[in-house]
This record gives sequence, C-alpha cells and structure tokens, in this order.
Amino acid sequence: MSKSENSGPNASSEYYFDVVPIEEAVRIVRSISHQTGTETIPIDDGDGRTLSEPVVALTDIPGFERSWRDGYAVITDDIHSASESSPINLSCLGAVRMGTPSDLTVTPGTCMYIPTGGQIPAGADAVVMVEYTERLGNTILIKKPTIVGENIIRRDEDFKASDLIYPVGWILRPQDIGVLASIGKTQITVRKKPVIGIISTGVELVPAEAIPRPGEVREVNSYLITVFSRRQGAIPVRYGIIRDNPDELRETISRATRECDAVVVSGGSSKDRNDITAKTIGELGEVFVHGISIAPGKPTIIGKIQDVPVIGLPGHPASTFMVLSLVVIHLLQALKGSPCQKTYKQKIRMATSVQSEQGREHYLRVRIEGDYATPVLGKSGLMNTLAWSDGIIRIPAGDEGYEAGDEVEVMLW
Amino acid sequence: MSKSENSGPNASSEYYFDVVPIEEAVRIVRSISHQTGTETIPIDDGDGRTLSEPVVALTDIPGFERSWRDGYAVITDDIHSASESSPINLSCLGAVRMGTPSDLTVTPGTCMYIPTGGQIPAGADAVVMVEYTERLGNTILIKKPTIVGENIIRRDEDFKASDLIYPVGWILRPQDIGVLASIGKTQITVRKKPVIGIISTGVELVPAEAIPRPGEVREVNSYLITVFSRRQGAIPVRYGIIRDNPDELRETISRATRECDAVVVSGGSSKDRNDITAKTIGELGEVFVHGISIAPGKPTIIGKIQDVPVIGLPGHPASTFMVLSLVVIHLLQALKGSPCQKTYKQKIRMATSVQSEQGREHYLRVRIEGDYATPVLGKSGLMNTLAWSDGIIRIPAGDEGYEAGDEVEVMLW
Repeated sequence: MSKSENSGPNASSEYYFDVVPIEEAVRIVRSISHQTGTETIPIDDGDGRTLSEPVVALTDIPGFERSWRDGYAVITDDIHSASESSPINLSCLGAVRMGTPSDLTVTPGTCMYIPTGGQIPAGADAVVMVEYTERLGNTILIKKPTIVGENIIRRDEDFKASDLIYPVGWILRPQDIGVLASIGKTQITVRKKPVIGIISTGVELVPAEAIPRPGEVREVNSYLITVFSRRQGAIPVRYGIIRDNPDELRETISRATRECDAVVVSGGSSKDRNDITAKTIGELGEVFVHGISIAPGKPTIIGKIQDVPVIGLPGHPASTFMVLSLVVIHLLQALKGSPCQKTYKQKIRMATSVQSEQGREHYLRVRIEGDYATPVLGKSGLMNTLAWSDGIIRIPAGDEGYEAGDEVEVMLW
Repeated sequence: MSKSENSGPNASSEYYFDVVPIEEAVRIVRSISHQTGTETIPIDDGDGRTLSEPVVALTDIPGFERSWRDGYAVITDDIHSASESSPINLSCLGAVRMGTPSDLTVTPGTCMYIPTGGQIPAGADAVVMVEYTERLGNTILIKKPTIVGENIIRRDEDFKASDLIYPVGWILRPQDIGVLASIGKTQITVRKKPVIGIISTGVELVPAEAIPRPGEVREVNSYLITVFSRRQGAIPVRYGIIRDNPDELRETISRATRECDAVVVSGGSSKDRNDITAKTIGELGEVFVHGISIAPGKPTIIGKIQDVPVIGLPGHPASTFMVLSLVVIHLLQALKGSPCQKTYKQKIRMATSVQSEQGREHYLRVRIEGDYATPVLGKSGLMNTLAWSDGIIRIPAGDEGYEAGDEVEVMLW
C-alpha cells in the first residue's frame, strides 16, 4: 500500500506527474465524486435511475393463495388414488371468479373450477390441471392425484413482507419497474441526474455546422460527451468552445464548477493546450492525475475545484471517446451513487494477430465479424475507427499483443 | 419451404392454431410491421435512433494534411542520414499555428515547428516527433530520418468524399453522433419513434397504486410494456385496464389501432381471457399466430387490424417480459426500420444442472454470479424471477437441459 492509498490523492503545484495505471485513475475519480441529491419520481420515469433507498416488500405478494393453472381446486386427501383408468368423481360447487374470493368452501367430495390466477377457495389445498379432468354435468372426473400445495402460488411466494428486493445503488431496468408496480411502489426515490458541464478548447475548432477553412476542424467532443453523458443518465450542459483565451478558459471552468456536479474539459490535441488546461485546474483547485498509462488516452487530467471533479480529456475525439468509456463512465456512475458500471463484454477469437506498440496498456478498437474480432486499423485519433468498431480489447502493459485465434474479451460500445 | 413462406401468413376464422416455433413468430411479426415515417432531428437527439437515409461524407475529412504529433515539419530527403550520433541541422522558419495555414514554405534545409493537429506547411512531407529533435536557437537538430508521409494524417484519411459511412437502418450510438458532427451533419433524418398502444385486460386487476382486495392483483404489464418500449425507442401510450367487458375491449383495441403504429394487449392469465383477446383481434382483423412453442410465453397472439400489428401477450408479468424480450423487440425494431436487434449475450458455465420440463423450447432465467450462471428457480409467473435474474438461457425443444459446468449463452436483460 502506498501512502496515498490512505491519505487520498495529493495535489501538487507542479502539473507534470508520472502517468498512473488506469485502475488508479478510476479509484481517484471515484474517491473525489460526491453523490448527487435525491428526488422522488414516478416509476414510469425510473428506467436507468439509481435507487437511493432500499426497496422492501411492505406486504406479502400476491397476498393470497392463487391458482397457477386452469383447473379444479380440490382436497388432496380426496383424490390420492385417482388415475386415468380409475378416476375419482367430485361434485363441482361452481367456478371461482377472477378477482373476487369465493364464498363457497370446498368440502370432502367436492371441488370448484378455478382459472389461472384465481383465489384458492377455502377448504381446497391443491389444483388439478384441467387436462387431467373430465366434466360430466356437475360431476368432475379427476384422473391424477395431487400433492398438497400443487399448482398453488403461496400468498408470500413472490415477495414476503419485509423482503429486501433491491438494495441502495441498484440501477433500475424495465423489469424492475414492473416489480415495483407489483408491490404498489409507484413512486421511487433515486439519485438526481448529475449535471455535467462540457467545455471544448482548441483554436482550430469551429462549430460542427460551420464549413471549416483550411487548418480548422469541426468541434466534435462536445457532441460525444453530451450524448455519452445522457446515455449514462446525466444531464449535459455545454459551455461552448474556448478558442485561445486563458482568462476565458479560467472563467468558464470556474463558472461551470459552480453550476455543475462535474466538469469535463476536452483539450486541444497538442501538448501545450493540455498543459494550459492542467495549469488552470491546478490554479483553481487541485490536480491529482496528469497522464494515464493507456494508449490512446494518455493526456487525461483528473482534478477537482471546490469539491467538483474536473476531468481534462485528450483533444482527439477518438481518444476522448476511449477515456469516456474507460474513466468518465466511472465518474458518472459514482455521481449517481452506483457502486459499479455494467459493461457488456464478449469473448471472441482474434481474426488476425495484433501487436502492441507501447509499454503502456494498449486499447485496440475491433470490429466483430461472425465469430472473430478484427482490429480496426488507422491512427487512433481518426473518427472512422469509432464509426467502424464494435468495441475495444485491452492489451496489458508489457504484453506484445495477440496471435490470430487467441481468445480476447471485447468491451462492447 | 412451406406454402405460407411465400404467400404470407394466412388468417383463419378459427382462433385455435398449432403453436409455431419462435423463429416463425419473429418472421411473421417482422412481415406485418410497416416502417414508421421519417423526421429530421438535431444529432444531439439522435442516440438510439435509426437512420432512414444513408450517411455519406460530402467532403474529405479532415480536408487538409494534419500533423499527428507535436514535432517539426520536414522534407524527408533532407534528413535521410539523420541519427542520434550524427544529427542533421535544419533552420527553423517558425511555428505553425493551430487553426490557420502557414504562409511559409518549407524549403530544403529548413523546417517548421508544428503542434499535433496543425496543418502541414507547403513543401514539407513528414513530421519528426519532438522527442527526436533538439533545439539550439533557430537551429533544429534532427536525430532520426522520416519516411514520406510519416506522422501526417492525409486529407482524406478519416473519410473520403462520397464514402458511405452509415447505411440505412443503422442504429446511432454516441460515437456515431461524434462522427456525424465531424462531417458537419448536424441534422439527421431518422424513422419516427413508433407509437405503441398498450391495453391491459383482467377482471382481477387494480391500478398499481391501489391496495388490492383479496383475489385482486396490481396491474403490472402496462409498466413493463411502457418502460420496455421506451428503452427500445418507441413512444408508449396506455389505454388503461379493461376489466370484464368484451365491447369495451373491442372498442379500445379498435381505437388504439387507429391511433398507434402497433398495439400490445396483455391478456389475463387464464385461457378464457386469452381466447377473448384472440377472438376480438380476429373479428376486427386477422390472427396469424395463437401460441408460440416457448415456455414460458406460449399463449402469445400475433395478428393485425387494418395493417396495424396487434400482439396479445400472456397475463403473467414474468411471461409477458419474456415475450417482450424475444418477440415484441423485433416488432419495435421492424417499425423503426432496423434490420436486426442488438442483444447482449455472454458465454458462461452453468453452476448447477438444469432440466427442461417440456418438449417446447424452454427459456430459463439465470443469475450470473462470478464465472457461473445459476438458475433462478420459482414458477415462471413470479415477479421475483425477474428481479433476481440477469438474463435467460435457451434450452432447445427436445433437449433435456444442461449439466453443471456446461457452457451456455446467456441473453442479458
């Protein structure tokens, strides 16, 4: 254990740091993120939200004994000798109606018709499926014995009063919304969506709708960060493009940290630009990380200003997207109070061999074709590598790469 | 090929059909679904939307030669003999500024400083990374030769004018929104979100916020269908609970088919109820499928009324969710114009053995714990099996099940 493990990240007045491994970067990002406040919302709007309260069943569900099949409610003792060749005759008292308890009681020698989901009438202890019966007027021929409880959903078989159904931090899925409805919980208390300030810097940048002149490029990162954040359940707020003015950068970062739960600054692609971002964050607050040992994505900055995490991303959009997928996702989830981030991974074989060029941990974009993953070649900053890839594979630091046919794990994106 | 393969599904005045395999059900659902109209939206709102036009690069991107590194723009011929021990000296003409073309030309014996992303000045044909240089006043010592084009992003290296970037039917991801921004496409034409009418039937149903009396249960399916549809990019519209009135059911289905792109009716859990739904759809239109050979989920109905697909789902919410995940998802994607549905699958080993009870194709809910999938036991209609499962595995019709340690594919949900 290093000293900083216990004392938390240390700030420095210098903005040049050793690069840190990605696990350390994620740990630091999580350690400086504060959960957002809570709000109570209708469950219809709950998909993807994170519970800030545990969900506990208040009553037994379904709360009464229900039939699991269409059939006849019977007394097991009456029909223990029933068989196809020698059925037992029971007198049918009538039919259970859905949604209302029957006021009749099944007594020895009698039975009642019951539809799936109907309430088991008093006296009965099992349901014979209609397939194993025959009706002759009011007499029902039962051709199969039951065991006590057969085809009955117990009154607490779905949920028992005081059962913990979902813990704090659970990210709600569509099926969970159904579960909440089933226990009558139509309002739910969740973490507020974190508000993420987005600042793009770069003198070469023009708005995406503009026609760039020679030397200029369209500003892409605010789109990537906006849509990525929204998909992760955050509210993105754009603070525009800062072209070349350090004072404007400082003012904008400062304003964004006052108005947001976290701020993401995407730097220009040159080292100088990145250093200005780090310097500004350092002067307004603290810088903990300047450089992560991943390729692409190395020039990532992690700092905070007044308890608000501030992340500096590389300028190349494709590198930015890599760091969004590997680091910023943890920031967003930590702000939302989620202990972990669900990512989808697929084990698959490499179609060709790939070599890692660096000592750093290397992430390679791949396309999945049939049963194989093919590397998407091209400089890591190119947008086409994002368009045409299905996910990334990791080549650990020190490894030389993979041979064709090696099994790899693709993190799908 | 069966006859119906070419002639399309045939309607019948009888509502009792042989069960069909799930592949056939999916084929029929897709064959009766009409793509929604199109609309043009800002790309910021494009995540998850389906392209109704191909996206083609209108110009070369980046459109000019850019440096891929911080370094010096050089003429390769000048420095072919450069080495650490015997550097070549070049005279530095100045620095390329980001965002504007330099009006200087690199001539033999000269070079220019260039930041990553800067426009390559006229005359230069490569960039030497700054790490392989040393500056002495206006003289730059170059310690490594280049090859022509080294560290240069070609003017069409990201996208070439008229390159097809995304085909019709592509479902946009966050990274795709960045790609669209990079080519200046800030508005995009996509399929409209399909409007899905949702009708719940069942005399035993009470609204989720009510306290059920004995025999009653809370209405859950409209929540499942609403949130599931929304996550799949549709607009859910609830038509309420129809308790016990066939005329009301008929009127409501009829109204919903006039107002929506598709209608989903969740039946009660008893066979009778399901038959009434099938009968009503059949009288207003045509029924193609009444029963799919899957467990759970068998009593699914597929029909159409006036060209609007109408799906009847089983009443048990857990079965409903299964059919949403296996069948309705294809309806929603077909309406959106997506040729296929992305599902996430994970190969994993079974922690325990499982047996299939039926001849039908059987779907089993499983929880993933570490490297193993554990079956979530309990009657298939129970909500707790949804709450506590991570996905489903398929046991093909005729198979007996899996042994502990067998590899299975989990469809994550």
